[in-house]
Amino acid sequence: MATRKLFRQFWRPVSKLCTGELAATPIRRTIQTSAKHAHPFPGKEHIRPPPKRNGQILALTGGGVLTIILGSQLAYPSHEKSAPAPPPSHETTTNPRTLSEPETQPVLKEGIQYYRLDEIRSHDGASARPWVTRGTSVYDITDWIPAHPGGDVILRACGGSLDPYWDIFSIHKRKDVYEILEEYKIGEISPHDLVDGKLPAATVPDPFIADPERDPRLLTLTARPRNAETPSEGLSPFLTPTPLFYVRNHMWVPPVSADEHSLTITLPSGDEKTYTLEDLKSRFRTHTVTATLQCSGNRRADMTRAVPDKGTNGLQWEAGAISCAEWTGVKLRDVLADAGLDLASPGPDAKHAQFEGAEAYGASIPLSKVLDSQGDVLLAFGMNGAPLPADHGFPLRVIVPGNVAARSVKWLKKITVSDEESTTQWQRRDYKCFGPNVAKPDWSQAPSIQEMPVTSAITRIQRPSSGGKVNVEGYAYSGGGREIVRVDVSIDAGKTWAQAELMGDEGKGSKSWWWKRWRFEIPDEGDRGGEVLVKATDESYNTQPEDYRGIWNQRGNLSCAWHGVHVGPGEGVKGGKGGDGGGGV
Amino acid sequence: MATRKLFRQFWRPVSKLCTGELAATPIRRTIQTSAKHAHPFPGKEHIRPPPKRNGQILALTGGGVLTIILGSQLAYPSHEKSAPAPPPSHETTTNPRTLSEPETQPVLKEGIQYYRLDEIRSHDGASARPWVTRGTSVYDITDWIPAHPGGDVILRACGGSLDPYWDIFSIHKRKDVYEILEEYKIGEISPHDLVDGKLPAATVPDPFIADPERDPRLLTLTARPRNAETPSEGLSPFLTPTPLFYVRNHMWVPPVSADEHSLTITLPSGDEKTYTLEDLKSRFRTHTVTATLQCSGNRRADMTRAVPDKGTNGLQWEAGAISCAEWTGVKLRDVLADAGLDLASPGPDAKHAQFEGAEAYGASIPLSKVLDSQGDVLLAFGMNGAPLPADHGFPLRVIVPGNVAARSVKWLKKITVSDEESTTQWQRRDYKCFGPNVAKPDWSQAPSIQEMPVTSAITRIQRPSSGGKVNVEGYAYSGGGREIVRVDVSIDAGKTWAQAELMGDEGKGSKSWWWKRWRFEIPDEGDRGGEVLVKATDESYNTQPEDYRGIWNQRGNLSCAWHGVHVGPGEGVKGGKGGDGGGGV
Repeated sequence: MATRKLFRQFWRPVSKLCTGELAATPIRRTIQTSAKHAHPFPGKEHIRPPPKRNGQILALTGGGVLTIILGSQLAYPSHEKSAPAPPPSHETTTNPRTLSEPETQPVLKEGIQYYRLDEIRSHDGASARPWVTRGTSVYDITDWIPAHPGGDVILRACGGSLDPYWDIFSIHKRKDVYEILEEYKIGEISPHDLVDGKLPAATVPDPFIADPERDPRLLTLTARPRNAETPSEGLSPFLTPTPLFYVRNHMWVPPVSADEHSLTITLPSGDEKTYTLEDLKSRFRTHTVTATLQCSGNRRADMTRAVPDKGTNGLQWEAGAISCAEWTGVKLRDVLADAGLDLASPGPDAKHAQFEGAEAYGASIPLSKVLDSQGDVLLAFGMNGAPLPADHGFPLRVIVPGNVAARSVKWLKKITVSDEESTTQWQRRDYKCFGPNVAKPDWSQAPSIQEMPVTSAITRIQRPSSGGKVNVEGYAYSGGGREIVRVDVSIDAGKTWAQAELMGDEGKGSKSWWWKRWRFEIPDEGDRGGEVLVKATDESYNTQPEDYRGIWNQRGNLSCAWHGVHVGPGEGVKGGKGGDGGGGV
Repeated sequence: MATRKLFRQFWRPVSKLCTGELAATPIRRTIQTSAKHAHPFPGKEHIRPPPKRNGQILALTGGGVLTIILGSQLAYPSHEKSAPAPPPSHETTTNPRTLSEPETQPVLKEGIQYYRLDEIRSHDGASARPWVTRGTSVYDITDWIPAHPGGDVILRACGGSLDPYWDIFSIHKRKDVYEILEEYKIGEISPHDLVDGKLPAATVPDPFIADPERDPRLLTLTARPRNAETPSEGLSPFLTPTPLFYVRNHMWVPPVSADEHSLTITLPSGDEKTYTLEDLKSRFRTHTVTATLQCSGNRRADMTRAVPDKGTNGLQWEAGAISCAEWTGVKLRDVLADAGLDLASPGPDAKHAQFEGAEAYGASIPLSKVLDSQGDVLLAFGMNGAPLPADHGFPLRVIVPGNVAARSVKWLKKITVSDEESTTQWQRRDYKCFGPNVAKPDWSQAPSIQEMPVTSAITRIQRPSSGGKVNVEGYAYSGGGREIVRVDVSIDAGKTWAQAELMGDEGKGSKSWWWKRWRFEIPDEGDRGGEVLVKATDESYNTQPEDYRGIWNQRGNLSCAWHGVHVGPGEGVKGGKGGDGGGGV
């Protein structure tokens, strides 16, 4: 089957909670499409053709993927003034129900179309003509959807208000975006449904409605989306108790039914195969792999404190954006083979495995990691012996051991084997590193973070009530399944070092995908106090840099210099509750 | 087939040229043996049983591997005084030829057996009763050979003098070793063959007789064995010209005939299969892989200078113990499969691939590296498009891309798939790293070096005769096939950094087994001068430590801190000829 590459303009849709640069500029991406899929929205073939500008075509194609050719100089698709679009057609234009309800007597202005909320709700993402509201205005965005730079996540808002989503994707709050939206305005929300001229809060959909209750011991950085780190007590066990496993959500937790959920795999040939959860469980051998997941921003707060004049962009994690669990599922390579991929000779177009989650997040990994018989990439449905919880991808998550957790896409619904990386911002931009001099990165010049460098942290300080030795403990971890072979501790600012005791935890898997716990006793310095430093070495004998002079980067990623904690009066692990056995991180 | 583990005492046989500690202490190793091989020296079944001591048996078993049980408290196998061994039997004892040659009239003392050199020569390593001489004494060491801690390398000396070998393996020059040898004395060299009471130099075998001529541009650290680094001009091309490829020999270059050379593979089952060079070339698919090889001691001199009060043990390499070549051969995994190993399920005893060279050197790698379809472990017979030269393993060398070069065993003659690492000192001791506080390492507590950490170096400074910018260039490399993604350069002691230009060299292979060349222009500081610093980052975003505070180790291994070179008056890369385009390293 012939495939075509088209350019698609897209925006970084996430707020400063998730991204490094609010003044984002658009970048271009290429998307592979398949000619056999005639239209992304079946049953809506007769919509208005996409607008032209500067002589370039907004080309609408199919394959379940929105694809548009845009001039790279376009900040946002606009609309041709010289050929105004025909007025949108609405089933209810001729007889809006707002005018036929006499029991209330709102102020209705002449010449304005009014719509009741229940009608608006019927124009949801599954309808033939999706509508949205913003403030009290109503928009039929049917014709805009194919051009939406953020993809079909916009359907999530249809049938209701855009406002709560734009509060998340704040990049939309710009004059040019408002202007585009106004072109699709069809009327106003009926005053019958307004209170004091506004939509009552209860009628505004909550994108986070499926977010679960969380353990209150988690150290929450942001509530919506939820980002919360593991407290000190959760960092002590080898396997993190599931309720204390750190939470890193880029958006909301999508409502997913295990019975209805399916995974669709698309190969470079265009062949697709869809699996239910039951298919995966019953047709493939089950494996359990122990893997530590770590956010690329773990310990970012360290870097920020070390370079206060520059700071960093991103969630200010302390040392708890890392956890370890046993994951149970089937090997992705087995499923890809079943889907028709020749593992021994996958072909020149099979270079990356792109993952899409049900909420809109996406990322990719090199296919070589999947094909590696020692790579252990899982389609996981279990975590620590139980089904995946909602926060960690229920009912299906890809687990990429040894890689940054951002590639272990939750609520997995689609895998595309492609010749290019995922085109999302999370693949092409946010999760990268640049030199300490780089203020305006050329994102194409750095590889996306996959394996992570060696790191370590002090997570707890315990002082026996009777005095004596102070017990210091923590973790060390390296990417790529490289085992930690040594942890060095210094109490004299790095002049001399001693080796910490390494715990002998054994995980499951082809390589050491898990962290190493360590502990060390230091003399009680009493009133004097001092700083304890830790650094780790992995089996490749890579080690951590001493400070942030050489690794500072604007995004604050991969903050892995020697970790130091003050012990003595006022002691405590930063970001937590302090020492004496309760130090959070 | 049942396998047994036996303990074997062994010594570090190599002089201070190759090892870190002359006052070496013995360690214990386990060796897998196979009962089906009755005796390591076929045809010599009737030798004296190995001696006992402290109630422990020196057990002689087979499998082509010498195996002995020794008490761990034994510094060296000794001999039971209470049960003296029967006198050695010699074919010539009753009629030594030295007494039947009247044409010379040397002084012969009564009661001493004299032997002529030609008779001694007939007792070489292939004979039924190997002899050696030391000084003017003659020893029948037939019964000692199975107990020799250094393995059958001792056969290399048989039929002639031990002295040149003990000059290399100077660990033997100890009273207890002399005492053991004296127990095997059978007589003296005939005075007919002595000049001024000594063996004439021409009659003493030269272990290095097969060593080739070397390019005089190589920077030689030691002549015997030859250890020489690549000069600056050799570090500039992507592929190092073969004559300038650095030479790291632990011993002599063994005389090997391509026609007669063979490779024997032993599996855990005990099954053996032997391949001629022609077998390998004709029966398996040929691959070419580009791989940088680097000594674990590369840049050791940097570490030594940085910690002058402690220093380091080992060859004081500058930054030229590294080179890059294209290697052509067959994949070891293909040959192991042919030899009968089930690659998909090799069994619990198949954990390491042990390699033995024809000169006596040995090392091993994890079998997982061999089984990895992206591991590219080659049995190489070609280098840069020509047959391997003598210094680099002619006619067969295993190439382990991404690992320390010490595992790419030259003059390869034997591969054993085992449940344990090679028992040589080069696997169990020398090539390891310990914390900067460790003076007396517990060798068992650190993993042998396999993949190497990220490093970089400045190799050339070029100043245009007309003034202006100064061109600085060098290499960056990381182990495990991890590509170098960024090289940072600083001219203000690391306060600020800029990115060097990376050369776009593309090698051959499943991963980036090759170095990355880089260049950078700095202002000509004229009379002021200053230091240029370089550091690299690999695709796992590991980077180099700033200095040696945290990575110093007694062996001086993996010296990979930021590399600095003085530019300006008196400029030059240390260890070489200096700047202005001719800086050697």
